[in-house]
Amino acid sequence: MAGNSFGSIFRITTFGESHGEAVGVVIDGCPSGLAIDMEQVQQDMDRRRPGQSHITTQRKETDRVEVLSGIFEGKTVGTPITLLVRNEDAKSKDYSHIKDKFRPSHADFTYQGKYGLRDYRGGGRSSARETVARVAAGGIAKQFLATLGVKVQGYVSTVGTIDLTVPYQDLDLSVAETNIVRCPHPESAEQMIAAIEAVRKAGDTLGGVVSCVITGTPVGLGEPVFDKLHADLAKAMMSINATKGFEYGSGFEGVRMKGSEHNDKFENQSGQIRTTTNHSGGIQGGISNGMDIYFRVAFKPVATIMQDQDSVNEQGDATTVQGKGRHDPCVVPRAVPIVEAMAALVLADHVLRDRTT
Amino acid sequence: MAGNSFGSIFRITTFGESHGEAVGVVIDGCPSGLAIDMEQVQQDMDRRRPGQSHITTQRKETDRVEVLSGIFEGKTVGTPITLLVRNEDAKSKDYSHIKDKFRPSHADFTYQGKYGLRDYRGGGRSSARETVARVAAGGIAKQFLATLGVKVQGYVSTVGTIDLTVPYQDLDLSVAETNIVRCPHPESAEQMIAAIEAVRKAGDTLGGVVSCVITGTPVGLGEPVFDKLHADLAKAMMSINATKGFEYGSGFEGVRMKGSEHNDKFENQSGQIRTTTNHSGGIQGGISNGMDIYFRVAFKPVATIMQDQDSVNEQGDATTVQGKGRHDPCVVPRAVPIVEAMAALVLADHVLRDRTT
Amino acid sequence: MAGNSFGSIFRITTFGESHGEAVGVVIDGCPSGLAIDMEQVQQDMDRRRPGQSHITTQRKETDRVEVLSGIFEGKTVGTPITLLVRNEDAKSKDYSHIKDKFRPSHADFTYQGKYGLRDYRGGGRSSARETVARVAAGGIAKQFLATLGVKVQGYVSTVGTIDLTVPYQDLDLSVAETNIVRCPHPESAEQMIAAIEAVRKAGDTLGGVVSCVITGTPVGLGEPVFDKLHADLAKAMMSINATKGFEYGSGFEGVRMKGSEHNDKFENQSGQIRTTTNHSGGIQGGISNGMDIYFRVAFKPVATIMQDQDSVNEQGDATTVQGKGRHDPCVVPRAVPIVEAMAALVLADHVLRDRTT
Amino acid sequence: MAGNSFGSIFRITTFGESHGEAVGVVIDGCPSGLAIDMEQVQQDMDRRRPGQSHITTQRKETDRVEVLSGIFEGKTVGTPITLLVRNEDAKSKDYSHIKDKFRPSHADFTYQGKYGLRDYRGGGRSSARETVARVAAGGIAKQFLATLGVKVQGYVSTVGTIDLTVPYQDLDLSVAETNIVRCPHPESAEQMIAAIEAVRKAGDTLGGVVSCVITGTPVGLGEPVFDKLHADLAKAMMSINATKGFEYGSGFEGVRMKGSEHNDKFENQSGQIRTTTNHSGGIQGGISNGMDIYFRVAFKPVATIMQDQDSVNEQGDATTVQGKGRHDPCVVPRAVPIVEAMAALVLADHVLRDRTT
Repeated sequence: MAGNSFGSIFRITTFGESHGEAVGVVIDGCPSGLAIDMEQVQQDMDRRRPGQSHITTQRKETDRVEVLSGIFEGKTVGTPITLLVRNEDAKSKDYSHIKDKFRPSHADFTYQGKYGLRDYRGGGRSSARETVARVAAGGIAKQFLATLGVKVQGYVSTVGTIDLTVPYQDLDLSVAETNIVRCPHPESAEQMIAAIEAVRKAGDTLGGVVSCVITGTPVGLGEPVFDKLHADLAKAMMSINATKGFEYGSGFEGVRMKGSEHNDKFENQSGQIRTTTNHSGGIQGGISNGMDIYFRVAFKPVATIMQDQDSVNEQGDATTVQGKGRHDPCVVPRAVPIVEAMAALVLADHVLRDRTT
Repeated sequence: MAGNSFGSIFRITTFGESHGEAVGVVIDGCPSGLAIDMEQVQQDMDRRRPGQSHITTQRKETDRVEVLSGIFEGKTVGTPITLLVRNEDAKSKDYSHIKDKFRPSHADFTYQGKYGLRDYRGGGRSSARETVARVAAGGIAKQFLATLGVKVQGYVSTVGTIDLTVPYQDLDLSVAETNIVRCPHPESAEQMIAAIEAVRKAGDTLGGVVSCVITGTPVGLGEPVFDKLHADLAKAMMSINATKGFEYGSGFEGVRMKGSEHNDKFENQSGQIRTTTNHSGGIQGGISNGMDIYFRVAFKPVATIMQDQDSVNEQGDATTVQGKGRHDPCVVPRAVPIVEAMAALVLADHVLRDRTT
Repeated sequence: MAGNSFGSIFRITTFGESHGEAVGVVIDGCPSGLAIDMEQVQQDMDRRRPGQSHITTQRKETDRVEVLSGIFEGKTVGTPITLLVRNEDAKSKDYSHIKDKFRPSHADFTYQGKYGLRDYRGGGRSSARETVARVAAGGIAKQFLATLGVKVQGYVSTVGTIDLTVPYQDLDLSVAETNIVRCPHPESAEQMIAAIEAVRKAGDTLGGVVSCVITGTPVGLGEPVFDKLHADLAKAMMSINATKGFEYGSGFEGVRMKGSEHNDKFENQSGQIRTTTNHSGGIQGGISNGMDIYFRVAFKPVATIMQDQDSVNEQGDATTVQGKGRHDPCVVPRAVPIVEAMAALVLADHVLRDRTT
Repeated sequence: MAGNSFGSIFRITTFGESHGEAVGVVIDGCPSGLAIDMEQVQQDMDRRRPGQSHITTQRKETDRVEVLSGIFEGKTVGTPITLLVRNEDAKSKDYSHIKDKFRPSHADFTYQGKYGLRDYRGGGRSSARETVARVAAGGIAKQFLATLGVKVQGYVSTVGTIDLTVPYQDLDLSVAETNIVRCPHPESAEQMIAAIEAVRKAGDTLGGVVSCVITGTPVGLGEPVFDKLHADLAKAMMSINATKGFEYGSGFEGVRMKGSEHNDKFENQSGQIRTTTNHSGGIQGGISNGMDIYFRVAFKPVATIMQDQDSVNEQGDATTVQGKGRHDPCVVPRAVPIVEAMAALVLADHVLRDRTT
């Protein structure tokens, strides 16, 4: 129950520390006979990769995915698919200064408290480098979903105090990939980039929000009680490093509406039952209703700042944590493929679960 | 994988339809030798019970809990604890008018789509009556946590557009149980009650937010990757009927802060390492750090309104869903013990998980 | 992880102590829309019931199954099916003489060691009364399997030293239900009955073997590595009270053959690939090959004998455990429906698992 | 639910095909702070390794274990431990002659039926090469158990028709490792080796039995209903390639005893409650009682023989499977460390499970 697995039928187990030999993932339960294009998987890896633009960390990692098992002659064979990424640009020496110190709002203190020891290099297992494995696995899940017409697309909707308030229906989401902050609204994107540049110069960091839209979902995904589709999406998203909140459909704002305004009326659209509005976010009673699924995920400002901070060490003595290293001033541009990957994993799992109903 | 179980070691399985014979729960994995006070469990049941005040549904259900197994001479014996509540005031005839109609923003359409048939009486399994079982199980979890000094307390912080903005630290949370809306701020409580009364007269409904604070948590609960403590809390909360969002610690607002503002600095307080602020919400890297855990859960306005609504029937023909029956105009006052129960179940499970680390 | 659940998709959770209020089972994951005949379920209950003949215990329990949830208008609706049997003829006073003593080869000592306390009445949770719940759940699984043409049939093949050595292919298995010992070979049945009568008079007990044959299984059930079909059958059988061994196909005797004798050659029988022999017992590489599945389960002699036995009490002092009460002199006649139920549960689960491959 | 994981808290996931890049294992849930000696792990790998003697297959594989994660400065850190073994001497061309043929009593036919395609090279995932991963993981489990004084020791007790009938209590089990067949009785060992040599010359194969003894187990391991300690051992053993049966304690022979003979009487041995006999095999009611645990596992004769055999191909046409390649004439000598590994994994898991009771 150490929690390194996710999913029930389409199930992944990730492993690896930030500065260990490698990070990787075992995917169990992917249906057999699925054609896999590893170049597509690599593209998502590149969207997550450090050093991809001047507003991300400047660490250099190529993050090439190696297939260890489960794919034969370009197809899945029903056995576990293992994907491995070797760690390359790990400068463990960079971390000797915090070997016995607890960085504020990091996991150093809680790991030490839980395990009695820790691999302090680069945050060890608590590093967001673990998400390399998620994106790789998500790439396989996306290809499975694509065969069913399901598509997952994320984008940045908030950076710091700059919000994109245009609803997703009025945006061309493909624009998101045309700028380095991954915001589908060019004007907002420019402001977001400027905000990140400003904060980076100040040695500080920003938070943000990633929005995500899933189209093409059939009716019936999700289990009605504890494993509601949105409950599993919530868990998936909140398991990503640095997340602080999740909302779907009308979300927290929906609270302020009346029932008569919020209810989504059914109508027959050319033989298909659809709703006229979609405050439900594509999910009713925990089960997909065939409309678009959409949700938002809040990320806190990055905890590693380029400023000295007061803290304590393992002995409980006051100390200073120096601000140094190569880090992201804002994680949301690189978080987009991670959010997509986790969403794809949830959907793929529920597609398979629904086959047993 | 039909999703009627929750938790991994302290694990519950709930059963029962709204208008079936009974609803109940099997709790597996509760440690042996725990003294159980069933009257305390019943008190939480009464906080959830319909008809407890004039702002809730007027259905009459006593919801008395019967113990079928697992407790011998007042103590748990390590075997499954089964708690049963018979359904009493189920007026199935009240639902014959919607037998083949899909109520807007209910689960009728998605259940029919997923299963090909459904128990339409009172919403069947999709009814919030299922939460009877959660509150009963949560009552056991609370008593387990109490032996460790952990306490879970929820309250209503928003009804419709009325927000309680005072932080929980500045409130006496015990005040919540002194009014029928369960808000610890008397002035806000009055406004909330008035708002619910107004909307009920109009045959409409409101949404709201339940906040929850957990005190006394030791350092080390939560697993660092997928089963982060806040990820499991998010799933637990989002599995409750009618929820739309979850946030913990600084939440969505934390996005707008800079890292230098958001970071919680460590200090030595009389030999104990604590943080000076608590934007982390008591959880760092997915693991409890010993500070208070706090979070907020958004509930949509109740879907059942006392107004006629356009919809379609199973054949896809346009129809009208009549507004009738006995329903809550706003669920959050009764949702407080449900939120607490789910939080207690998550914590109890992670206490046991941590024992294997 | 307290182990009161079995199965992964078609999953049961049993509860209840021998002398508590009731024993029961929650079945999660049974497909929706399955027509259920509860009288058929009751028939299996009656085959397991105490007091059914003069060679079983004379306790009187009607073991009527009550449906609490999951079945509506005669069909499963996809929600948990809960079946309850109230305890009736529980004479708890009969057990006061062993309240603080450890009966030889019972679970008294190990329960006390594990949990620090125990419900000593009738063995509490360690009683074979728990299998009431398994037989009830197995009755539902059998009806699911019947829709696919899969049939499970058990019979007694050994009682004490009396062995039925005729292979199952040369027997009419339906004969088993025509005698009280459930042996399909009338001559052997008579000898077995006589042996049980003799041992009962002597206040002693016998062991035995239950054989089981599963016909109509499609190719492809079972998962190839840890959850091999025979591995799950082995676990299922060894989880039944008083079992000591499991073998399938050629079993322990197969060890003595050479590979050239043991290999099952494939041939094309009217367009269907079959094997000419079936030492594999219908399972190759953990996956069903479409041939009959057959296996054998060893049961030890009943531990409760009508003779005084030396033992120790909770304080570790020497004591005598008196031989009294109403117990079976040999469990295998009543174990037949239990073996069938567990086999049906394994098969039903693997049918659903295979749908996700 | 594809079944490539085993265990619930101390949980392994294995991956890799016989002729793929590598086989490996992720161990999740191993307690932190455990000192690991990888040379000890390698020793068990060498006991399983092909080519270790003239009575095993002559394939040459060094099977060196690489640590990818989870161990830092010689200790476990509570994160997943990943162990990898690259495939070396894989001669895939050796298998082109069976690319579209079904080898008798292999998994070719059932894999093809289940998945619609298969990696035919060396049996792919159905190859016993998968057990490389189990032995590596078992090596970690053994080191965890050693800290608690628990020791697992296997040996060969039957090869073909040659049985070692001396009870384990009368043997010096350490002798097993002094001969190539791993039988602790030198005279029997010689006969077994001769029998294997004879059958190999004839191009045929033999089956056998591996016995296993676990000492030092505390009272209380095992969960009382479905996850009885012997049920989990049964599943573990029956999940090993080529197994046909499992028995523990008195096993199938125990059936023939009377209750008065079979019952293990308790007595107080210098303050410790022990049984005077141990037909229970150290397990009562599914829970360890502190006595030695012992069990036996039957292995069928190896299916790959050096003789031509009739079969069919994927099209259902009659064909001949040629006898060629490098294979074991009898697997039991190499199966000993596999049996031990699986037993160690079961015990380690139940040690952790018991901590939550």
